[in-house]
Amino acid sequence: MNFASDNWAGAHPAVAAALSGQAAGFAPAYGTSDLDRKVAARVSEIFEREVAVYFVATGTAANSLSMTALARPGGVAFAHREAHMLEDECGAPEYFTGGARLSPVDGALGRIDPALLDRAIRRHPAAFVHAGQPMATSITQATEVGTVYGLDDIRAVSGVCRTHGIPLHMDGARFANALVSLGCTPAEMTWKSGVDIVSFGGTKNGCWCAEAVVVLNPDIGRDMPFLRKRAAQLFSKSRFVAAQFDAYLADGLWLDSARHANRMAAALATAIDVSSKLRLAWAPQANEVFAIMEKATFEALQKAGAVFYDWHPPYGYAGPVGESETMARLVTSFATTGEEVERFGRLIS
Amino acid sequence: MNFASDNWAGAHPAVAAALSGQAAGFAPAYGTSDLDRKVAARVSEIFEREVAVYFVATGTAANSLSMTALARPGGVAFAHREAHMLEDECGAPEYFTGGARLSPVDGALGRIDPALLDRAIRRHPAAFVHAGQPMATSITQATEVGTVYGLDDIRAVSGVCRTHGIPLHMDGARFANALVSLGCTPAEMTWKSGVDIVSFGGTKNGCWCAEAVVVLNPDIGRDMPFLRKRAAQLFSKSRFVAAQFDAYLADGLWLDSARHANRMAAALATAIDVSSKLRLAWAPQANEVFAIMEKATFEALQKAGAVFYDWHPPYGYAGPVGESETMARLVTSFATTGEEVERFGRLIS
Amino acid sequence: MNFASDNWAGAHPAVAAALSGQAAGFAPAYGTSDLDRKVAARVSEIFEREVAVYFVATGTAANSLSMTALARPGGVAFAHREAHMLEDECGAPEYFTGGARLSPVDGALGRIDPALLDRAIRRHPAAFVHAGQPMATSITQATEVGTVYGLDDIRAVSGVCRTHGIPLHMDGARFANALVSLGCTPAEMTWKSGVDIVSFGGTKNGCWCAEAVVVLNPDIGRDMPFLRKRAAQLFSKSRFVAAQFDAYLADGLWLDSARHANRMAAALATAIDVSSKLRLAWAPQANEVFAIMEKATFEALQKAGAVFYDWHPPYGYAGPVGESETMARLVTSFATTGEEVERFGRLIS
Amino acid sequence: MNFASDNWAGAHPAVAAALSGQAAGFAPAYGTSDLDRKVAARVSEIFEREVAVYFVATGTAANSLSMTALARPGGVAFAHREAHMLEDECGAPEYFTGGARLSPVDGALGRIDPALLDRAIRRHPAAFVHAGQPMATSITQATEVGTVYGLDDIRAVSGVCRTHGIPLHMDGARFANALVSLGCTPAEMTWKSGVDIVSFGGTKNGCWCAEAVVVLNPDIGRDMPFLRKRAAQLFSKSRFVAAQFDAYLADGLWLDSARHANRMAAALATAIDVSSKLRLAWAPQANEVFAIMEKATFEALQKAGAVFYDWHPPYGYAGPVGESETMARLVTSFATTGEEVERFGRLIS
Repeated sequence: MNFASDNWAGAHPAVAAALSGQAAGFAPAYGTSDLDRKVAARVSEIFEREVAVYFVATGTAANSLSMTALARPGGVAFAHREAHMLEDECGAPEYFTGGARLSPVDGALGRIDPALLDRAIRRHPAAFVHAGQPMATSITQATEVGTVYGLDDIRAVSGVCRTHGIPLHMDGARFANALVSLGCTPAEMTWKSGVDIVSFGGTKNGCWCAEAVVVLNPDIGRDMPFLRKRAAQLFSKSRFVAAQFDAYLADGLWLDSARHANRMAAALATAIDVSSKLRLAWAPQANEVFAIMEKATFEALQKAGAVFYDWHPPYGYAGPVGESETMARLVTSFATTGEEVERFGRLIS
Repeated sequence: MNFASDNWAGAHPAVAAALSGQAAGFAPAYGTSDLDRKVAARVSEIFEREVAVYFVATGTAANSLSMTALARPGGVAFAHREAHMLEDECGAPEYFTGGARLSPVDGALGRIDPALLDRAIRRHPAAFVHAGQPMATSITQATEVGTVYGLDDIRAVSGVCRTHGIPLHMDGARFANALVSLGCTPAEMTWKSGVDIVSFGGTKNGCWCAEAVVVLNPDIGRDMPFLRKRAAQLFSKSRFVAAQFDAYLADGLWLDSARHANRMAAALATAIDVSSKLRLAWAPQANEVFAIMEKATFEALQKAGAVFYDWHPPYGYAGPVGESETMARLVTSFATTGEEVERFGRLIS
Repeated sequence: MNFASDNWAGAHPAVAAALSGQAAGFAPAYGTSDLDRKVAARVSEIFEREVAVYFVATGTAANSLSMTALARPGGVAFAHREAHMLEDECGAPEYFTGGARLSPVDGALGRIDPALLDRAIRRHPAAFVHAGQPMATSITQATEVGTVYGLDDIRAVSGVCRTHGIPLHMDGARFANALVSLGCTPAEMTWKSGVDIVSFGGTKNGCWCAEAVVVLNPDIGRDMPFLRKRAAQLFSKSRFVAAQFDAYLADGLWLDSARHANRMAAALATAIDVSSKLRLAWAPQANEVFAIMEKATFEALQKAGAVFYDWHPPYGYAGPVGESETMARLVTSFATTGEEVERFGRLIS
Repeated sequence: MNFASDNWAGAHPAVAAALSGQAAGFAPAYGTSDLDRKVAARVSEIFEREVAVYFVATGTAANSLSMTALARPGGVAFAHREAHMLEDECGAPEYFTGGARLSPVDGALGRIDPALLDRAIRRHPAAFVHAGQPMATSITQATEVGTVYGLDDIRAVSGVCRTHGIPLHMDGARFANALVSLGCTPAEMTWKSGVDIVSFGGTKNGCWCAEAVVVLNPDIGRDMPFLRKRAAQLFSKSRFVAAQFDAYLADGLWLDSARHANRMAAALATAIDVSSKLRLAWAPQANEVFAIMEKATFEALQKAGAVFYDWHPPYGYAGPVGESETMARLVTSFATTGEEVERFGRLIS
C-alpha cells in the first residue's frame, strides 16, 4: 500500500522494454538521433501544432528553463502560492533566470484566482523600473492538491495574461492525469486555451526519467537550445529519454496509465468517503487524494503498512482540521493496484 | 565501424539489466533509497575514503556543480585551453557559478603545464580586487586528446595549487580509461595525488546516464545537496542512476569495459601505424586515437562505412598537417569490437 | 512645500563644501586614500566596535550587497512585505545573489511580527533541499511607513534569527532618523540588539550620494571587497563619497539633520491632527507622515503648490480609507523649513 | 609630479562649481529631473543622433551593463587580452551577464587585430550549442596602453562584427582623449564607424563620478532602464551626475581637458625621448606614456617625488626590457601642470 508519491513507483514494463531496446547499437549523440526526431514529431502530432520539444532531466529543470525562456530583467512571474516552483524547487527558477521573482498568488485548492492574478500583476505598472516587470504566469495542471483547472479556468487565467501582455506557462508534471480528467485534447488544454509553453512530464506517469519543455508559441523560446545546454540539461545519450517517450506516447499508454491512476484515486476517495475513521478533504480530480484523520489513525495506518505523507492544509480549504487530527496526501500511479486500494479500504473501514 | 564518440554507444548489457530490474516496486525518491545509499558506500570503498557522492544528469553538470562548490566572488578557475569546460559546455560552468571565469592554460597534448599554471595564477595577487581571485584548477583525465596525466603530472599540478591555496578538480568523464591506463588505484589517481573533487563519469563507458560529483576533500562541498537541487539535477527516481552505477562498479565491470576500450584504441593505433595511408598523430594512452590523413582518404573511409570526426590539432602538436590533409579523431568504447577494428585496418592497409 | 521624498532634496551646505574641498590635489584611487581610511575609523568609533565599511553608490546596492554577503544556495531571506528590497529595487537583491528569494513577512505598520517571522522560517526545515534554506532576515529602520522598531522590537526579531541560526540585516536608509527617534546609540540600535550588518544611508539625510555597507559581525562579509568590486560599486574617486561622510559624521551633523527632519514631520503631524480636512493615519516616529484626505483635497493641495505622493495603505492599517479618499505620504528632510510646514498647515486648516 | 593615474586627480573647478550649484532646492529623483533630461539631449546633440543615455556609478558598471544589454545565452564577447573588462573588473561583466564569457583577442599595443578577431569568432559556428554563441565585440578607445584606434581600424573591427552579425561596444573611459587625438567627431568615431553602444566616461577627464552608457543603435538596449535599476546603478539624486556632465559638455570643457592631458603626455614623451636615463616604449597617442628604465632609476624617481606605476609589457611590444629594467606607465590628466612635466624632465635629463 504505497501512496507516498507517484515518483516512488518504477517504470511501466513497456517503457522499460523500450529502454532495453536501445542498449545495443550506435546513434548520434546530443539529441540528434532519428529516435529523438521521431519523438519530437510525435509530440507535434499530439499537440496538433508544430511545436519545439526539449528533453530535460527533471521537472524542476523543465519549469526553470521555461521561466528562463520567458525571463526579463527585473522579471516577476506569478504562480500559485503552493506551486511546486515556489514550494519544492530550492529556488531553481530564480537561480536559472538569474534572479527573477516568483510572486505567490492565492486561489482555492491549488488554482490561481484570476481576479487576484490581475491585481497582483497590476502592482507592476509598465515602465516603472522600481517594481520590476511582469514576465509570465505559471499554472500547475493537475495542481499540487489533486484538483484540475477546467478549460474555462485556464482561459480565465490566460485572458488576464493577454490583457497584460505576458505569456502563460503550464507545469504539466501531471499533464496526463489532468488531460484524462477533463477528457479533452492536449491542444484544447494548452494553446487553444492560451497556454504558450508546457513542462511536459512523463516521470510521474510511468517513465524513469522523461521530462520535456514543449514550446507551443513559435514566438518564444528561440534560444532554448542554448538555454538547455548552458543549464547542463542536454543528455549525450539523449535517445534513452526519447525511447521512454516513444513508448509512453505510443498506443495511448500515457493516457491509459493516467486513467488508471485517476481511477485508483477515485476508488481511494470512495473508500475514504464511506469510512468512519477518515474523511475526504475534497473530491480528487486526478491522482492525489487528501483526507483528514486522527493522528493516531495516521500512525496506525503507517504501522499497518500504508505509506503516505501528511500535508499542510492548502489555501482555501474551508474545513476544520482538529488539534488531534492531521491532513494526509495519498498518491496513486500506473503502479497502484486495485488490490492495494481494497486493502487500504479494509484497514479504514 | 563507428568511432564517432563513446557517447554514440548504448548501454552495456549488465547495466541495461540492472535498469530493468528496477522497473517494478516502490522506493523513496530524490536519492534517499537503499540503492542510492549502497552505491554511495561503494564509491567510498573504491576511493578508500569517506566521500560524498552526488548523481547528476550530465558530465557538464558534474563539472559545473564542482566549479560552483569551489566558487568565490570574482573567481577564476584554471583549465587547459582545450578542456571540455572551455570548449564544449556552452558556458555552463560560468552560468552555474554566476560568472566565474575559466582561464585557459596551455600545455602539450591536453595536459596543463604546471609552470604555465603557476604563472597564470600569479597574475591574480591575493586581495587585489581588480584581478579577481583564483578559485580552482581543473584537469581532465583522460584528456580531450586521449593522453593521460601520470601520477607525477597530477602531483606537479596539485603542488602548484597547494602553493596558491586553491583546490584541484578532476574532470573524469573518462576516469576509468585513465585509471586502467595508469594501472593505479582511484585513491592514488585522486586524493593521494592532491585532487579534491571529481566529476566521475560512467556514461561514456557503458552506462546510459550515470554521472556523479565525488567530493573527496571533506572541507569542501558542504552545500552540494542544495547546489544540486537548485541546479535541477536531483532526479526524483534517482535509483535509476544508482542502479546503473551499481552494475557498473560491481565485479570490475567499469575497469573491464575501460580496458577493452583502451585495447581497441591501441589496436587502431597499431593498424594506423603500419598503414601507408594514415599516420598516427601521437600515441594514444586511453580510448581516443588521433591520425593524420589526406582529406580524400577521410572521405573515402566515411564512404566505406567508417564513422569518425575531423579534429583541430591541439596545442603542442609539433607535427605537420599538410594543406591537403586533415587530423581525425577515432574513439573506442565498451561497444567497439575487434572485428570493427580489423575491418578498419583492412580499409587503410 | 516639497514633501515628495527626502531624495528630492539637494545637499547640506557642509556636505557640499566638503565635496568642493576635494576638487584640487591628488589622492590614491579605489578607496585607499587617507580620507577613506579616516572615515572608516570614524564609523568604527560611532559604532563602538571595529567595523568594516564599504561605500557604494545607492541604497539598493547596499541592501543587495548585504544580501550577497549572507547568501546561501537556495537561500531565502525574510523581509517585511513592504520593505524597499521587495517593493522598490527591481529585483536587485535577487539578481545580485544569483537568485536568492525574498520571502515577505507581515507585521503592523512596516515592522515584522516576530511570531510570523518564526513561522515563515520554520517552513524551511534544515537540510530539506526542496524548500531551500533560510539565509537572513532584514528589517528596515526607520520603516517604509515612518515607524521605528524599538530596541525591544529589534531584540525580538534578532532572537528569532538566533534561534534559527541566521544573521540579521538592517536597511538603514533612514538610520539617523530612527536613531534620534529612539534616542539611543548606534551600537544599541544595532549589534547590541543583535544586528549583524547594516545598510548605512546618508543620501536621504543631506548627502549627495553617500551609502555604505557596515559589517558589524566580524564573522561575516569577508569577501565584501570582491563582492563590491564585482558588482561595479567600487568608485575610483572614492574619496568623493568619503568627503561627504566626513562632513556628515563630524560635529553631529547627521544627528542634527535627522532631528530637524523628524521635528518637521512632527510639526506636519500636528497640523494635520488639528485640520478638519485631513486626518493622521498613524503617529509618525521619524520623518514620514501619512494622512488620509479626500481626493479632491489632494488635488487642491497639489495645485496650491504642495508636492507629495499618494500611498497604498500598509498591512495592519486598521483605519478606513473611504472611496472618495486617498492616503498620502509627506516626507521631510534636512532641507524642509518650518516656513513650508506652516504654509502647508495654513492650507489645510 | 603625480602621474599615477587620471583617477587620482580631483575635479575640474567648473565641474565642482556645477555640483555646488545643485546643493539647494528640490528636484525629481531617479533621473527624471529637468537637468537629467537636458544632459541626455546634449549627448544626442554631440553624437548627432537620438541616443539613449544612462548614468551609472563607475566605468566597470558602464561596461558590464553594456555587455548585459547585448548578452545571449552561452554568450561570448570578444575583447583585447589587455582590456579593462578582462584585466581589472573582478569579473563584473561575467557577473552582470549571468555568466557570459570574455574571450581574449590579441593585437599589437592594445588594439584588436581584426583577422584574429575573425578567427576567434569563427570558432563558434552558428547554432552549435556546445561552443556557445558570439554576442559582442568590445574595443577600448583610447586603449589601455595609450594608443588609439584610427577610424579605419574601428571600421575594420566593425566590419568583422557585421559579417558575423554581432554588435560593437566601445569602452570609452578615455573617450575624449581618443577623440581629440583623432581630431574627428564623436559620430565619426562611433556609429558612423559601426559602433553600437559606448561606455562614455567623464571621471578620468575632470569629473568626480560621471559615467554613462550611451546607446547609439536604437535596435538594442531597450531593457536598459530595468537593467540599470536591477544592477543598483540608478542614483536617487541622479542630478548630481547630470550636473557634472552638464558642465563637462558645455563650452568644450571636455575637449579642452583632454587636449591638455594629451599635450602633457606628449611633452612627457619628448622629455623621455631626449633623456639618457629612460627610453620611450612607443609613441603615446592619448594621455598615457610608457617608458623603459633601470629599476634603480625607477626607485630614484619615486624618491625624488615622482609618483607612477610599473607596468607589464603588452602583447606586441617588440622592444627588449632588460633584466635590470622595468617598464613604467605615466598618466596625465586635466590636472597635470606643465611645471610638473618640466620638473620631471629635469629629473631624468
